[in-house]
Formats: sequence, C-alpha cells, structure tokens
Amino acid sequence: MRADLLVAGSGFFGLTVAERCATLLGLNVVVLERRDHLGGNAYSEPEPQTGIEVHRYGSHLFHTSNERVWRYANRFTSFTDYRHRVMAVVEGRVYPMPINLGTICSYFGAMMSPAQARALIAAQRAEDADPATLEGRAISLIGRPLYEAFIRGYTAKQWQTDPRDLPAEIITRLPVRYTFDTRYFDDTYEGLPRDGYTAWLERMADHPRIEIRLGSDFFDLESSPVGRVPVVYTGPLDRYFGYGEGRLGWRTLDFEVEVQPVPDYQGAPVVNYPDPAVPYTRIHEFRHYHPERAHYPGDSTVIMREYSRFAEDGDEPYYPVNSAADRQTLARYRKRAKAEPGVLFGGRLGTYHYLDMHAAIGSALTMVDNRIAPLFSR
Amino acid sequence: MRADLLVAGSGFFGLTVAERCATLLGLNVVVLERRDHLGGNAYSEPEPQTGIEVHRYGSHLFHTSNERVWRYANRFTSFTDYRHRVMAVVEGRVYPMPINLGTICSYFGAMMSPAQARALIAAQRAEDADPATLEGRAISLIGRPLYEAFIRGYTAKQWQTDPRDLPAEIITRLPVRYTFDTRYFDDTYEGLPRDGYTAWLERMADHPRIEIRLGSDFFDLESSPVGRVPVVYTGPLDRYFGYGEGRLGWRTLDFEVEVQPVPDYQGAPVVNYPDPAVPYTRIHEFRHYHPERAHYPGDSTVIMREYSRFAEDGDEPYYPVNSAADRQTLARYRKRAKAEPGVLFGGRLGTYHYLDMHAAIGSALTMVDNRIAPLFSR
Ligand SMILES: Cc1cc2nc3c(=O)[nH]c(=O)nc-3n(C[C@H](O)[C@H](O)[C@H](O)COP(=O)(O)OP(=O)(O)OC[C@H]3O[C@@H](n4cnc5c(N)ncnc54)[C@H](O)[C@@H]3O)c2cc1C
Ligand SMILES: Cc1cc2nc3c(=O)[nH]c(=O)nc-3n(C[C@H](O)[C@H](O)[C@H](O)COP(=O)(O)OP(=O)(O)OC[C@H]3O[C@@H](n4cnc5c(N)ncnc54)[C@H](O)[C@@H]3O)c2cc1C
Repeated sequence: MRADLLVAGSGFFGLTVAERCATLLGLNVVVLERRDHLGGNAYSEPEPQTGIEVHRYGSHLFHTSNERVWRYANRFTSFTDYRHRVMAVVEGRVYPMPINLGTICSYFGAMMSPAQARALIAAQRAEDADPATLEGRAISLIGRPLYEAFIRGYTAKQWQTDPRDLPAEIITRLPVRYTFDTRYFDDTYEGLPRDGYTAWLERMADHPRIEIRLGSDFFDLESSPVGRVPVVYTGPLDRYFGYGEGRLGWRTLDFEVEVQPVPDYQGAPVVNYPDPAVPYTRIHEFRHYHPERAHYPGDSTVIMREYSRFAEDGDEPYYPVNSAADRQTLARYRKRAKAEPGVLFGGRLGTYHYLDMHAAIGSALTMVDNRIAPLFSR
Repeated sequence: MRADLLVAGSGFFGLTVAERCATLLGLNVVVLERRDHLGGNAYSEPEPQTGIEVHRYGSHLFHTSNERVWRYANRFTSFTDYRHRVMAVVEGRVYPMPINLGTICSYFGAMMSPAQARALIAAQRAEDADPATLEGRAISLIGRPLYEAFIRGYTAKQWQTDPRDLPAEIITRLPVRYTFDTRYFDDTYEGLPRDGYTAWLERMADHPRIEIRLGSDFFDLESSPVGRVPVVYTGPLDRYFGYGEGRLGWRTLDFEVEVQPVPDYQGAPVVNYPDPAVPYTRIHEFRHYHPERAHYPGDSTVIMREYSRFAEDGDEPYYPVNSAADRQTLARYRKRAKAEPGVLFGGRLGTYHYLDMHAAIGSALTMVDNRIAPLFSR
C-alpha cells in the first residue's frame, strides 16, 4: 500500500489518527508498530490457562467526561457498567481508597458526620510542614495521620525515594471525599469494553485503508520517510532525536502474573499495599473487572503484583518522572520537535506527558482536525 | 367518561394495568385513588424549602433483572446510573452493608482473603442454636458475632420483638458477600428515574383514555360497580371483604422529615442504626440519590428518620407481618377472592404480599396478558 500518512505507534493515539484519517479523509495510512501486537499499553489478552483477560501493561480503566470521546469510543465497542473501586491494606486492616468518609471513620475508629470529619482533617492539616517537599505538601492537604497511613509508604515505593526528598510538585492534589462514595473516578462515563480492549483496538484498525505493520520500528526503516510523507510519531520524544538533548526520565513497572487455585484471591480488582515492608505497590485481580463473564473459571483466578522503579535502558517507559531537569530537557526537545518539518509528535511517549486513554483519543481527534486535515484539503 | 375497566388504586400495579389496557386494548379506564395524589407508595415530591425530592413513603430504589419490565419502564422515564449502597453504625463505628468482605475485615479488625473470611464465618455458624427462632436461624446463617452486631438490634426494632421470640421464617436468607463489592442490589438494571418518581408515574397516567379520580375511595362509590364493569382492586384484601375473616397484620413506618442547615448530613443516602438505644431504624438523606442535580442547595439538606412498628387502625399498611395466623387468614381471603366474580385482586395490598416496584409492574403486565385481555377479545 502506498501511504498518504505514516503513523509510528499503534496505541490509542496512533490508531485514532489512523482510523479518522482513513474514514473521514480517505487516506491510506500505514501504522508501524515496534511491538508484536497492536494497541500500545492498553493491549490485553486472555491468560491461556484460565481465559481471564489480563491487561499486560497494568490495569486499564476507561473513564471520560468528554462527550466526543465517549461517542467516538462507542463506535467500536460497548461498555459494561463497571465502576472502579480500590482498597488499601494498612497495618493489617483494609480501607476503601481514595480517602473518603468511610476511610476516615474507619481509620480513626469513630462514626463522624461530613462536618466532623472536615473539622478533624482541617485541624490535622494545620501542622507546620516544609512546603517544598512532597511530605510537607501532603500534610498540608490531608494532615499527617492520613498521609503517614495511606500516602507515605506508597509514594516512597513508587518513587524509590523518601517523600521528604521528593519535590512537592509531584502531587498537585490529594482528593479527600467527605462522603461514603467510594468510586475511584468522578467522570460522567465509565466502563470496560465488553469484549475486551484488544477487540476494541482491532476494530479501530479494521479498515481497508489502514495497514498495521507489527514488529516494525520506525527507526529501522531503510530510508527515512520524513519529507516524503507526513508522519505522526508517537514513540519516545528523546529517541526521535537520538537522545541528542539527553535522556528524559521515566518510571517503569514490573508485573508478576500468577494463576491462583482459588475462586477469588482478594475480593477486589485492586488492593494497594502502602506498607514499605511489602515489595509490591499493589495486586490486581483481573476477574473482578468482568463479573458479567460467565466463562471465567470458578476455581482459579489471575493476580498480578505490580512493582515500581525508575526505568533503565531497555525498560518500557511508563510514567514521566518530570523532574526539574526533565522539564528543561523537555523544553529543548519541544523546540526541536516544532522545527521538524513533516512530523507531528503526539501521544504519551511523543509528548512526554502521561495521558489516559480518553485523553490520548481526545488529543488525537484534535490533531486530526487542526493539524492533519488541513494538510490534505485544498 | 364511561369506563370499560375500573381500577382501584393508582400505585405501580394499578397504573400499569390502566396504561396497558388504554394503549394496547383501547379501553377507557377509570382509576380511583383514595389519596390526594397518584402513584401509591412510590410517590415523591420536592421538599418545599430545598427542592430536594423526598420519597414520602420511604426510600424507593428501582432495580430489576426483568428485561420486559426494564423496557416498559424506559417508555416513561430514563434512569440515572445510581447504585444503592448502605452504611450501618454499630458501637460507634461505621460499616458497609449488606455484610461483605469489607464489613467482616473491618468488624474483626483484620485483612482477610475471601477464603479466610469464609472459614471464619463457617466456624462461627457452627454454633448450636435453636433453629425455630429467628435468632437461631440467623446464627446458623452468619454466626453470632455478625448477627449480634448487625442483625439483632435492627430486627428487634423492626418487629418490636426480641428476635428469640420471632419465628425463623421471617428470614429466608441473610446474604454475606465475600468480596468488597458493596452494591446493595444484584440486579441487572438499576437506577433512579431522572425526573423523579412522580414524573414517571404521571407519564404512565397521561393517556386520553385514562381518567384518574383522586380522593376517591372505591368503597365510597354510590353503588358497587362489581358485575357491571370489570374491576381491578389493589387496595387491602381484608378491607374488600369488610374484614369478614379477620384482620391481616401489617407493619407500618413513621417518618420524621427534617431540613438540616448543612451541605451534607451523613455522607450517604441511607445509614442504618441497629443499636437498640437509638429509637429510629435508619436515616435517609435524599440529596444523595441525585448527585447529578445541580439545582439542589449547597447549604441545606433533607433527612428523614424512619421508625418501625405494628400498624394499628388508620395506619398505612407497609409490610405484611405474615405470621402463622396471618397466613391462615390469608388463605380464607384468597378463597373468597377467587370466588368474587368480575374482580381481579392485584398489587401489594390486594394480595397481601410485599412487592417491589419492578415486581408490581411485572405482575400487572402478566395480569393484563392472561386475565384482562381475554375478557375483551372475542
Ligand atoms: C502502566 C499504565 C497504566 C495505564 N492505565 C490507564 C488507565 O487505567 N486508564 C487510562 O485511560 N489510561 C491508562 N494508561 C494510558 C494508556 O495505556 C496509553 O498510554 C494512553 O492511551 C496513551 O496512548 P498512546 O497511543 O499515546 O501511547 P501507547 O499506548 O504507549 O502507545 C505507543 C505505541 O507506540 C509504539 N512505539 C514506540 N516507539 C515506536 C517506534 N519507534 N516505532 C514504532 N512503534 C513505536 C509502542 O510500542 C506503543 O505500542 C496507562 C498507561 C500506563 C503506562
Ligand atoms: C416503605 C416502603 C418502601 C418501599 N421501597 C421500595 C423500593 O425501594 N424499591 C421498590 O422497588 N419498591 C419499594 N416499595 C414498593 C412500592 O412502593 C409499591 O408498594 C409497589 O410498587 C407495589 O405497588 P402497588 O401498586 O401494588 O401498591 P401501592 O404503591 O401501595 O399502591 C396502592 C394504591 O392503592 C390505593 N388504595 C388503597 N385502597 C384503596 C381504595 N379502597 N380505593 C382507592 N384506592 C385505594 C392506595 O392509596 C395506593 O395509592 C416500597 C414499599 C413500601 C411500603
């Protein structure tokens, strides 16, 4: 196929660009994907022994308040009415997360009205704490007791760093909900794709004008297409420029998948372990994402322990570290990206900016409207 | 209007019969309603000071797994994605209800896997207890500690009777969920009518062939219509027969509505108080049923305390007591009802059988199919 548009990366960003350009603009789109599967980090697959859908790159929860993204997503899949909820184990007890009135009443061992809980936390927030550190900022947001119970250990493990040595900017907010509502997300729409993520992603790619080339790294092309055909690049920004401005820092995750010979391992989709003595940050149990699936086995379940660390060479980049140094490096790459003719940088890796799926889809739709469609209209 | 069919009672049962007979069979239907409003016990109205929708006869949650009922209901209203959840205050602490893994871990002060919790409760259930009493039966279902914490006081208040003196038949099951799922209902469909219950009920009644006569007691008609026009009677069964076989026992509820000058009183729609020292059984806070309603005030809220007792003369009958004596009385009334020509008995009061809204609608649809339509087809 002769490409009118080349897309590097088949995550939600790349696939949305490809699908819209094929369907609306009638373009032939070639999508290069380095991995042996499409879909980027949203990819999922049945665990072979149990058939339980496992999100290979960590739990993926779809939620959005963006009407346009919701309508767009519903062209390719329907959604269950799954609503995400998370528990946390602290000092041998278990609490609902994010911190809500139930967590507070339970942690402090007393029934409180919303007003009483607000007053308690306000008094605890008043403690004088160093505003430059993550610890100080967290205490000013939720007070020391809740910070120490629910945030300190988890953050330390996520960042392999004592929160007193982490910059305050890492957290902008720590939501505390003064009701017993334990929903994790506040968005208007939420759900899981009924037939799984991969079916959704495959339906997006299923268009006669779209060709997906798996196992094809953009940088392995014989000769650079740049200048000959418009390129949308969703791989790592620093790699595009041969790391010329230095490396951007990422955190990565290690996942340990295990089949357990019990019908239900932990009774919840995700349990957090803030305790520093526990090496993992959380355990996912995938069957709980699809209680409606009758074919899941009654006698075994799939869990996945998640470990967090700084990414090294060869690791999958997951979350931007976004240190002060990173931000300076990023500014230099942004300048070069702007000056790069014929290439549009997009997505989580291409902009060094964590994007949820709905945000990746939304920003891809905008890129098609504002940057790509004009190239092909005369 | 000349009636082809007379319906006594405008609850969900009566309105469903009226609407289907008018729409499908083209009948003129007159609905007599004793009260000054339509809708039966599902009626709701805005509290005048705050505009917050109050369910006058207690919290009404719509949920069903019946496809036909769900489709039928959606002809008249759309539903929010509200999911009911309830908390309980026990010994100054607060727990999610119905009893689930979170309740168990929290009450026993330890993180447990589903398997560990099952083993614990199984050991506690093994206690030897009198199977003839409610207490004995409850212990055999969930063990003494959970029974005493969550069931004993609540049941005693509901029935004004020590559970050791209540018959075991009152409870057939006490669900315990060994996951952290805190949903109150298990049904496929759940939600609250977007514009409120009364708007839904009024849309059902809004048909040129339906005439609703408020403030009209069936027994105040100048002359009995029975024999001249088919009658669907949804009032109390014993009253129809002039209490000739004795009175059927009912429990009733007293409600105490209060506007509170706070944005949020308890952080949850319903909080149960099993504690025998607290006179009410639960507190409802209606704003939590419609978090999506932007017009609700930010500085005040409406709560309703609920008290339970046996109904006396003149009280609203709410829940059938269903004692052994009641069941014998009921059998005699059933015989007489069968022999009463031209009258069909239906609904919660007319059959002395508690019916949720979806069950009332479902059984009304069946009555139209099987009992009423044949009368008018030749
Ligand atoms: C651990 C984790 C958990 C997440 N959980 C959620 C969640 O719960 N909810 C949610 O909404 N979102 C979640 N996300 C975000 C989601 O996975 C995507 O990252 C997001 O949708 C952005 O999509 P993308 O297309 O920009 O990036 P990606 O999904 O990362 O896709 C980029 C693709 O580009 C490919 N690529 C890179 N370099 C090259 C190259 N040189 N040549 C060819 N191909 C290349 C990669 O192999 C990859 O397939 C999560 C992300 C991570 C990392
Ligand atoms: C306290 C309480 C809480 C409830 N909560 C829920 C809930 O959360 N979810 C749920 O699905 N359902 C709930 N229900 C059930 C619901 O309110 C209805 O009872 C149910 O839908 C049955 O409807 P119905 O039409 O048979 O009875 P009703 O709704 O009771 O209607 C009967 C009507 O007949 C009228 N009537 C009686 N006698 C005469 C007469 N002689 N002449 C004229 N009119 C007469 C009455 O005034 C009344 O309006 C609850 C019921 C009660 C009592």
